[in-house]
Amino acid sequence: MQTKTLQEIADHVGGTLIGDGSIIIESASTLDSAGDGQITFLSNPKYTPQVKTTNAAAVLVAEQVETNACQIIAEDPYYAFMQTVVLLHGHRQHPNTGVSPKASIADSAKIGDNCNIAQFATISDNAVIGDNCQIYPGVFVGPNARLGSDCVHYPNAVIYDGCQLGDRVIVQSNASVGQDGFGFATHKGAHHKIPQIGIVVLEDDTEIGAGAAIERGTLEDTIIGKGSKIGDSVVIGHGAKIGAHCLLVPQVGIAGTAQLGQYCVLGGQAAVVGHIKVGNMVKVGGQAAVINDVPDGMTIVGSPAIDANKAKRAYALIETLPDMRKKIKQLEKKLKQ
Amino acid sequence: MQTKTLQEIADHVGGTLIGDGSIIIESASTLDSAGDGQITFLSNPKYTPQVKTTNAAAVLVAEQVETNACQIIAEDPYYAFMQTVVLLHGHRQHPNTGVSPKASIADSAKIGDNCNIAQFATISDNAVIGDNCQIYPGVFVGPNARLGSDCVHYPNAVIYDGCQLGDRVIVQSNASVGQDGFGFATHKGAHHKIPQIGIVVLEDDTEIGAGAAIERGTLEDTIIGKGSKIGDSVVIGHGAKIGAHCLLVPQVGIAGTAQLGQYCVLGGQAAVVGHIKVGNMVKVGGQAAVINDVPDGMTIVGSPAIDANKAKRAYALIETLPDMRKKIKQLEKKLKQ
Amino acid sequence: MQTKTLQEIADHVGGTLIGDGSIIIESASTLDSAGDGQITFLSNPKYTPQVKTTNAAAVLVAEQVETNACQIIAEDPYYAFMQTVVLLHGHRQHPNTGVSPKASIADSAKIGDNCNIAQFATISDNAVIGDNCQIYPGVFVGPNARLGSDCVHYPNAVIYDGCQLGDRVIVQSNASVGQDGFGFATHKGAHHKIPQIGIVVLEDDTEIGAGAAIERGTLEDTIIGKGSKIGDSVVIGHGAKIGAHCLLVPQVGIAGTAQLGQYCVLGGQAAVVGHIKVGNMVKVGGQAAVINDVPDGMTIVGSPAIDANKAKRAYALIETLPDMRKKIKQLEKKLKQ
Repeated sequence: MQTKTLQEIADHVGGTLIGDGSIIIESASTLDSAGDGQITFLSNPKYTPQVKTTNAAAVLVAEQVETNACQIIAEDPYYAFMQTVVLLHGHRQHPNTGVSPKASIADSAKIGDNCNIAQFATISDNAVIGDNCQIYPGVFVGPNARLGSDCVHYPNAVIYDGCQLGDRVIVQSNASVGQDGFGFATHKGAHHKIPQIGIVVLEDDTEIGAGAAIERGTLEDTIIGKGSKIGDSVVIGHGAKIGAHCLLVPQVGIAGTAQLGQYCVLGGQAAVVGHIKVGNMVKVGGQAAVINDVPDGMTIVGSPAIDANKAKRAYALIETLPDMRKKIKQLEKKLKQ
Repeated sequence: MQTKTLQEIADHVGGTLIGDGSIIIESASTLDSAGDGQITFLSNPKYTPQVKTTNAAAVLVAEQVETNACQIIAEDPYYAFMQTVVLLHGHRQHPNTGVSPKASIADSAKIGDNCNIAQFATISDNAVIGDNCQIYPGVFVGPNARLGSDCVHYPNAVIYDGCQLGDRVIVQSNASVGQDGFGFATHKGAHHKIPQIGIVVLEDDTEIGAGAAIERGTLEDTIIGKGSKIGDSVVIGHGAKIGAHCLLVPQVGIAGTAQLGQYCVLGGQAAVVGHIKVGNMVKVGGQAAVINDVPDGMTIVGSPAIDANKAKRAYALIETLPDMRKKIKQLEKKLKQ
Repeated sequence: MQTKTLQEIADHVGGTLIGDGSIIIESASTLDSAGDGQITFLSNPKYTPQVKTTNAAAVLVAEQVETNACQIIAEDPYYAFMQTVVLLHGHRQHPNTGVSPKASIADSAKIGDNCNIAQFATISDNAVIGDNCQIYPGVFVGPNARLGSDCVHYPNAVIYDGCQLGDRVIVQSNASVGQDGFGFATHKGAHHKIPQIGIVVLEDDTEIGAGAAIERGTLEDTIIGKGSKIGDSVVIGHGAKIGAHCLLVPQVGIAGTAQLGQYCVLGGQAAVVGHIKVGNMVKVGGQAAVINDVPDGMTIVGSPAIDANKAKRAYALIETLPDMRKKIKQLEKKLKQ
């Protein structure tokens, strides 16, 4: 954490300052909580009234608003806020310990420059770790797995054999990448494991949430596209392909071999069944069940998921079913008379 | 496990004994399975008929019932049963190993008196561990994190940097506390991580289930209130506030910045969206989706969640939709004639 | 990976070859992707047209089809494909390291012949490990727990005290077996932990997915029947009994004391409430909520779950609710006139 003047922040985010540029800003906070020495932001117009009454020293806005706080006008105030938080608070600093003698590193593994590999981490035979990687305690990197540079793997994350990770891939604690897909051949009453010979590919700039589980492919690889972010406890089935820049909120489930395009956003606990194709820029509501192909750009909600506009009205009417039933009975009765 | 006479048990729970106080009780069991030397309980009147036929030596009841077993009448028989199970079986005994030389404990960490810290556990820089804590193998306590006294952390539980835990906090295996919230600023087609500068606060007597994941706050802390119990694989989003004494059954999802009051009970797989406020003593059905503020004391079910009485009738009628549709068509036809 | 001739594969699976038995097969692939030197399969008639156009060298089929590829006719082509994948690719080879000096093995533990126990694994007091077991780094086997022979426990899997595992049990990474059930007695405003004195029994040939969590029983054991496969992030509540040969797809939740018969299949995110009995060979759709006893052989879907045939029509009609409501209003209006 380091303080900055308001002018320094305005310059950093490329914004226009309205107010006293010499004011010292110490930290970032919310509209509600921010006080002296703090900066906040307005990106959702719904909260405009709160800007009037905020006690923040300054607020990042898209256009000038009525407020006693100083303002920095920025094209994309939420992005400017992110830049400001990074400037004031920085990203997490990792312990700079080098490669611990208490880590277990196979002789055949290749470790890049400037890595920190903590005690109780395992780097297996023929694994490759790129430069500047942060490997926390209890992490397991399996045989022949490969990490790019600048990856961060938090405690007890597990990367199974052969999986391929790009640069700047973050894996949060207790996540599993590359465990066997749920694939069995049932024969004469027993379920026989099909060797899962695909791997998991996590492309550049992906992030895998805590406790998430990404299955390796049965025959073809499971792929998480560049820049996609996978929330906590999400499960991705074997051979699923997630396009670039998707956001999968916690507890989402994607069945094996499903395909998602780019820039899809899935709400919490949403599910996509196997063998279907979801287009680009599709938005899926929380708890929705996607059971058919979805064209580009659609917003769908509900279980089963349908067009959001239809669904909002339709699902809200479930509540009126007893009333509807009563009316139908009354109509039938009247008509009989 | 140690045996007690029935009289000793009656005295221990403050109950009134009907029957032979000298009978030796060895263990606790269910109404169905209990036999000689075993004690059971009746708290749900639904099971009263089974008390008649139980083979248990004794049964804990709220009021005298018809049975061949001895009876201990206690005001709250389920609580008395809990006391009895503790008396006969005790809570789990932890290995009394002290601080293992194979644990990794930072020089700057402070360890309280009488702690057991197992091999392969990591206590990071400036972390503080209170007295009488049980830290199992593979546990990670991050820099500047703080545990109160009498905490139990099961294998591979992970506490990220800076998180604050009260006294008697239990974290089950593979749970994650304080990983980054799912917070990104999307700008020119890429999702940029917003440093998550809040922490997680687990107040006194909280418990976090196996594989659960509690995100740290973006700007404000994520708080689990005193005495609340969080089930397995539950995910709590960044900055959510869970009031005191809530019960969140396994696989519940709480989105970021949602607020729950005290004594809420959420059924399995229920979800609460972000930015809403759920009152005190609210009961939420399994798989329900809470998408609006909820006043104190309500019971809600369904996705979307509505008043439980309404919902039970309404959701049950979904099954009759084909029939309703048919009737409407018939009515239209008749009316045309 | 080792190559085989087509004749060798046909002989291995007991199938009838149509085509050149001397062709060398190097690997297995999908109908879409397979090319020279690759074998694929057809088990779902839906994909018959793709067999015509496949570039695979050979295809496993149930009966002769029109295709340029060689064919092996096998009674159960999916099972034959599994056998072929095992023949060509084999199951995962585990590092043959013996018992690592960096593992922590209690003096009182018993380790079978020919086990590999990796660094940073813990085998606790009086635990028993059968022959030929593979224990990866970070695995915890608690006091008095018992594993049969030929078990595989992937990194950071946790087996709590006293749990009993059969032969050939696979536990994927970060899974928890035997953590405390979610059982509390609420008294005077506080939730008191009931000691969970049951254990978890994983019978022979069971598999537990990554991040899954199987609670120990309160009074009676939690049982996963012989040959059942439990997906990633599934939660099984305390005292539940899962029959033999069930398939529980990822993110399923089974509440405490629920009972499932044999050969049940539950889709992703499906839930079963407590204290109910699901029969044998029951199929449950994804996201379904099973809230009542289910007779043998039923297929049910929906939340709440009902007979699948009814449900498919009924849930699909939710979309038409606004239209139904409008029609009812029109009918009422007309009838008033």
